Amino acid sequence: MNAEIISVGTELLLGQVVNTDTAIVAQALSGLGINLLYSAVVGDNVERLRHAVETAISRSELLIMTGGLGPTTDDLTKETTAACAGKKLQLHQPSLDRILNYFNEKKVSENQEKQAWLPEGCHVFQNDNGTAPGCAFTAQTGCLIVMLPGPPSELTPMLHNYVVPYLQKGQESVIVSHNVHIYGRGEAPVAQMMDDLMDGENPTLAPYAKEGECYLRVTAKAATVEEADALCQPLIDEIKSRLGNFVYSVDVETLEELVVSLLKEQGKTLATAESCTGGLLAKRLTDVSGSSAVFHMGCVTYANEAKEMLLHVDHQTLLDHGAVSEETAREMAEGILRRSGSDLGIGITGIAGPEGGTPEKPVGLIYIALSDGERTWVTKRSPIGRTKSRAWHRHCAASQALDMVRRYLCGMPVTGED
Amino acid sequence: MNAEIISVGTELLLGQVVNTDTAIVAQALSGLGINLLYSAVVGDNVERLRHAVETAISRSELLIMTGGLGPTTDDLTKETTAACAGKKLQLHQPSLDRILNYFNEKKVSENQEKQAWLPEGCHVFQNDNGTAPGCAFTAQTGCLIVMLPGPPSELTPMLHNYVVPYLQKGQESVIVSHNVHIYGRGEAPVAQMMDDLMDGENPTLAPYAKEGECYLRVTAKAATVEEADALCQPLIDEIKSRLGNFVYSVDVETLEELVVSLLKEQGKTLATAESCTGGLLAKRLTDVSGSSAVFHMGCVTYANEAKEMLLHVDHQTLLDHGAVSEETAREMAEGILRRSGSDLGIGITGIAGPEGGTPEKPVGLIYIALSDGERTWVTKRSPIGRTKSRAWHRHCAASQALDMVRRYLCGMPVTGED
Repeated sequence: MNAEIISVGTELLLGQVVNTDTAIVAQALSGLGINLLYSAVVGDNVERLRHAVETAISRSELLIMTGGLGPTTDDLTKETTAACAGKKLQLHQPSLDRILNYFNEKKVSENQEKQAWLPEGCHVFQNDNGTAPGCAFTAQTGCLIVMLPGPPSELTPMLHNYVVPYLQKGQESVIVSHNVHIYGRGEAPVAQMMDDLMDGENPTLAPYAKEGECYLRVTAKAATVEEADALCQPLIDEIKSRLGNFVYSVDVETLEELVVSLLKEQGKTLATAESCTGGLLAKRLTDVSGSSAVFHMGCVTYANEAKEMLLHVDHQTLLDHGAVSEETAREMAEGILRRSGSDLGIGITGIAGPEGGTPEKPVGLIYIALSDGERTWVTKRSPIGRTKSRAWHRHCAASQALDMVRRYLCGMPVTGED
Repeated sequence: MNAEIISVGTELLLGQVVNTDTAIVAQALSGLGINLLYSAVVGDNVERLRHAVETAISRSELLIMTGGLGPTTDDLTKETTAACAGKKLQLHQPSLDRILNYFNEKKVSENQEKQAWLPEGCHVFQNDNGTAPGCAFTAQTGCLIVMLPGPPSELTPMLHNYVVPYLQKGQESVIVSHNVHIYGRGEAPVAQMMDDLMDGENPTLAPYAKEGECYLRVTAKAATVEEADALCQPLIDEIKSRLGNFVYSVDVETLEELVVSLLKEQGKTLATAESCTGGLLAKRLTDVSGSSAVFHMGCVTYANEAKEMLLHVDHQTLLDHGAVSEETAREMAEGILRRSGSDLGIGITGIAGPEGGTPEKPVGLIYIALSDGERTWVTKRSPIGRTKSRAWHRHCAASQALDMVRRYLCGMPVTGED
């Protein structure tokens, strides 16, 4: 079944609102095994909306429309779409009763009542979180048209509670995707390594870039989730065997989620000492709900005095090697480890830029140390030509620290030389 | 000038990625006074992409395309669009040099080189944050086509630094926008307060929501920047007089940028002690380049022991009032102030959720303290009905802390009761 989405609303074309409805609907459709071929946004303009709807119902089997069902005069979706589909609008009494009940009134304004006028013979989706009902009906072209309210807080529950079950009746296949997450190899080289696997029909394989990382999406279509998974598995195994330790997860979306769960499994704790990342690593760890079990404390030691006072970095080390050095990173990791009594300590020091670089210590030079109390490993990140943003250097340094912890906990070479 | 956007990428049709590029481009176009009439998403499919491009260039004067410029084989935008526009691709040596330089290599793979092949005679927009350049060229239909990379971190700076000035040249008048940033009042009430100012033609006024904040964009069209600014100023003054201390800046985009610059001006330093925000406040402060002058250290004290050890929070205080209490926040702020010798100390403790809430101390309850060594102010954030995400609670708590510092440094009531 081929589908498209038309979102209606001038606010989307002014950039005042990000169109999240499309992503919400698209995910639901892909879960149903329905192929979404196009999505479009049209402003509150009858002419352009009519043209978009006519094109859609002439080429697709399913058209989902979001927005423009509300009470205001610029809500044109229903009138326009019904006209394109050759349907009249008629009052749907149960919907009007719900609206009256919603406002706890005997009577509502014409604008409010307008929301209860629906295409003749349509299937109605009640709105449990607002006033405008959704509906489904078939155009003369044979295209099934589904209309949903624009506010995500109304659209999302209506979609999952009523529309998906309604559409599921028609379906006999599901689509399942798995994401293989990779750290330490970029999208382009990974894509090249997988080139011979990219042409598959079922499962399909597609590479995606992610800030400082990349991932491969394996997608299969089958009668059941189990069968789709069975189709994906061999390809996932092949990817893993080609990329080895560079694969950090399947379907765990971030390094921080993975690291927190590994620490929990192994009953270990981690403490952080950050200079150039300025708290970003701690922030990412604590983005994960429940991280308090494995992360008790971190220090952001921007100034040398702070490094000495909080982490007991040797004054002489700072004099001899400078704050941005392997030695300082090492002492930061070992210092926070002792200070916190945690099982693992991370130290990060470097130059995030854009200011502060020198020929000897350029922007992007960052040392990352991991200590377990017995051994300390240090990774040096050197800028290789590329001019990157401060945010990028900081993000990648935090990611690299997380990857070192992941490798340590998985018994792999910590600094990634494999 | 009538425009449309085509975003390319199957990931957008699978709903795995929300299409933020469209909103970013749409805002820039509306700032230029260009009417965006349609936006569409097409998957990585030559046939459908060709059809969408042909439709667009036949009806619009400007087509902006985002995504699909990368190195992988499913990046089809350039080849397909150039063909529709009747252009050949040719190697753009400066772009190849930038790619070589980016990877610090003498030679790159065919995939990487592919990115330097651009439509003949196009205007090139260099990519300062990635490898794929953008470009602009005119189709035989007369439609101006602009192609931009998909990753927002690459698209956004390219758009603002190169594309907007390029498009501005085409216009005989300039359009100038100023953003009035507001903290402590939501978009809806602000829009209501400004209702009578919204109908203006030149300058125009539009409200935008931003995570936990909002801003008003004042836009004027004139022959010169000076004239446009002169048109904006009275409206900006009126907004300020209506919102008073809730306006934190005009054109300074974030609270952290403002706070760092205020601290620099006043030669003051700030230290942070964070529990539930877990380093987010320190991270946001150190997002600002040069923040090392005013921010020397911060502590992330997730565990009670860490609060006692690093901040000298009284053991009895934690027993009597709990970690999430006004008293603990106060002692955290005063503790980090003494510990760091900074002029100002911030303490944040609360329940970010989704777990950990109780009837007495629900998710979203967060105490934020600011101390200057003589006085300590505490703000209590209480969950307001609707359930918000962990990320939202953390972000808003950090923003509130920054706003308290801003108010202190500006001599306003610190806790915002004005």
